[in-house]
Amino acid sequence: MVARRLIAMKQAGNDVVAVVSAMGKTTDELVGLASSLSSNPPAREMDRLLSTGEQVSMTLLAMAIETLGYRAMSFSGRQAGIETNTEHAKAKIRLVHADRIKSAIESGIIPVVAGFQGIDQNGDITTLGRGGSDTTAVAVAYGIGADMCEIYSDVDGIYTADPRVAPRASKLDVISYEDMLELSSAGSGVLQSRAVEFARKYQVVIHSRSAFSDAPGTLVKEADPMMEQAVITGIAHDTSEVKVTIRDADDTPGIAAKVFSSLATNNVNVDMIIQNVSEDGHTDMTFTCPEADLPRARSVVERLLPKIGAREYLVDESIAKVSIVGTGMKSSPGVAAKAFTTLAENNVNIELISTSPIRLSVVVNAEQVELAVRCLHTAFGLDADSVFEETMLSAEEIAAKKNKGR
Amino acid sequence: MVARRLIAMKQAGNDVVAVVSAMGKTTDELVGLASSLSSNPPAREMDRLLSTGEQVSMTLLAMAIETLGYRAMSFSGRQAGIETNTEHAKAKIRLVHADRIKSAIESGIIPVVAGFQGIDQNGDITTLGRGGSDTTAVAVAYGIGADMCEIYSDVDGIYTADPRVAPRASKLDVISYEDMLELSSAGSGVLQSRAVEFARKYQVVIHSRSAFSDAPGTLVKEADPMMEQAVITGIAHDTSEVKVTIRDADDTPGIAAKVFSSLATNNVNVDMIIQNVSEDGHTDMTFTCPEADLPRARSVVERLLPKIGAREYLVDESIAKVSIVGTGMKSSPGVAAKAFTTLAENNVNIELISTSPIRLSVVVNAEQVELAVRCLHTAFGLDADSVFEETMLSAEEIAAKKNKGR
Repeated sequence: MVARRLIAMKQAGNDVVAVVSAMGKTTDELVGLASSLSSNPPAREMDRLLSTGEQVSMTLLAMAIETLGYRAMSFSGRQAGIETNTEHAKAKIRLVHADRIKSAIESGIIPVVAGFQGIDQNGDITTLGRGGSDTTAVAVAYGIGADMCEIYSDVDGIYTADPRVAPRASKLDVISYEDMLELSSAGSGVLQSRAVEFARKYQVVIHSRSAFSDAPGTLVKEADPMMEQAVITGIAHDTSEVKVTIRDADDTPGIAAKVFSSLATNNVNVDMIIQNVSEDGHTDMTFTCPEADLPRARSVVERLLPKIGAREYLVDESIAKVSIVGTGMKSSPGVAAKAFTTLAENNVNIELISTSPIRLSVVVNAEQVELAVRCLHTAFGLDADSVFEETMLSAEEIAAKKNKGR
Repeated sequence: MVARRLIAMKQAGNDVVAVVSAMGKTTDELVGLASSLSSNPPAREMDRLLSTGEQVSMTLLAMAIETLGYRAMSFSGRQAGIETNTEHAKAKIRLVHADRIKSAIESGIIPVVAGFQGIDQNGDITTLGRGGSDTTAVAVAYGIGADMCEIYSDVDGIYTADPRVAPRASKLDVISYEDMLELSSAGSGVLQSRAVEFARKYQVVIHSRSAFSDAPGTLVKEADPMMEQAVITGIAHDTSEVKVTIRDADDTPGIAAKVFSSLATNNVNVDMIIQNVSEDGHTDMTFTCPEADLPRARSVVERLLPKIGAREYLVDESIAKVSIVGTGMKSSPGVAAKAFTTLAENNVNIELISTSPIRLSVVVNAEQVELAVRCLHTAFGLDADSVFEETMLSAEEIAAKKNKGR
């Protein structure tokens, strides 16, 4: 199906390069093999191991294209000229030497590039970490001066909210890099914020669209100053975080620094931080972090408790973060007030609040996340006239539908 | 288990390099993925796909070594400096630039090299084809000037015959390259003849031994002229071939050339060729080839029949080749006579005969292969005093035995 799609683009007169990720559960299986040998496998070996997943899919896609009568050639990260720093498992792309890809394109070949990987200056394979394949796609698009970087997924674009939660969510035709970044980091899983950040920096236009339909998706690009901005672009939610509260810590200078530098050193990705007003020289300190980081967070906090004079710590795993995002918020006062009022009217209790110039996030009980998203979606005028349907289908159902149509 | 073995060698004061093949059924699975897309996948993509199998095992072995507290580093064919020609799927090694492996050894690291693969002058990954990993091991051993190349398998060395067929077979302590080559090409599956040929050319001593025991195996090396040679080194057999007979072909010059050049062009690996005496200007032509090549052989022969005036062709899939091998045959007349007499006394019918200076092969009915191997083994004085036992155990049984012993 992917091969046919690439060929259709080629036939329409476009030069096209594909960037692939690993198939299905491949990466998980490779991680499982490594875990069975070592709880802390050497990073260089781990990266080399994981890089084989994309190398398998790139060769299979190239074969599929050739079988359909078109010329294709696979490129590993090394062959695609993707040079990174030496930070294994989370390498940063430094340069794309795109000469080899470019000359393949000029020869009428469809290059198929392995996402997620590059090589460092030692000639060792590195992987880019979470969001790596999307980032490779954007980097290659920049490297070859492409008009556009299309990123395919199982949804057909960026919505004003997750349609599985808010059935009246509508697809956006276009969204600014800034809004997309806030939505991604607030939990919208369609595009990785890292790839969006890269695209913003190098002004690569992204087209987020469905792998299962030819319908146009959402363009992610520089905000057009001539274009009238909606105040709110969308509502994102995230149920993958947990809340940790440290009770009655000493309220003396340097305590927060001690806690959060220890958490950072131990690779706990702290998201929101709230410190309450002091009472009797003691204070409560609350933060949220990904559920996956909780074991590390627990051990850091347990170790610190006596050193910061704290009484105890509490963990709440049943939380959800709901975020209202929009570049237009900057020039529209009253968004916060409207949001709080709406939630109160719907009996949604707000546990934590944090803000950026173009985002307002609240933490609520996980059981109330759907209610919170829906009532905010309605209150900020985002509801579509029709109820969302198409992407509620599973990939298999969509494929079946397409086959029937032929 | 492999990691522990390498570490034990290192602890004993040796510098050691490991060369690995792919795990279990990995290569078959990758071939299956490609076949599902294309009956004739592009060779460059196929090689890149298959090369991932060894890349996975090398990283896992390096991890296992590091987990046990020793330093290890994996090397793909490229990183190990294995340069080949551009013949995908059956590339020949041209050079081994072993500097990087050598400097790893000097730093106290155990290098783990992916077998079966190299790179060509375009920087593309090539695979070496059948016997590739053994050949890589020999090439790396030569490249770093190693004292010895140990090749591990599930049997503990080279025997005078396959012990599963001839229970009185005995293990050889040493065998010459020449005898080993004849045994390998006559069906002994322990060492690939390609690797033995490479070792002979560059005078690399091979130690063929068991992965499941510490017992010494068989050394494969240059024949020692001072050493008295046994007339016969061993008996090999091969049941993987089929026999094709073309009946009543024109007995004119160029007919054999036409048949066998067509077979070669169509990748049929012809082994033995026998042409009977002509009768009335017509002759029968018989050849053997691997069973896997039979479909191709059939289509070549069917196409040729009318052009060479032949009446029909017959296929016999139930044959076995039994070979008597020994460098000493050169200076000992009477080996053939003794072999034919022995087989006749045991009522084994000989269908075809072919010879080299140090080998005599006969084709017999597949049902008589065990009888033929045993009676020849006895007749040429190869029988051991004791009946073979140890390697009759499966790998699992041997592992269980070892665990019990600890």
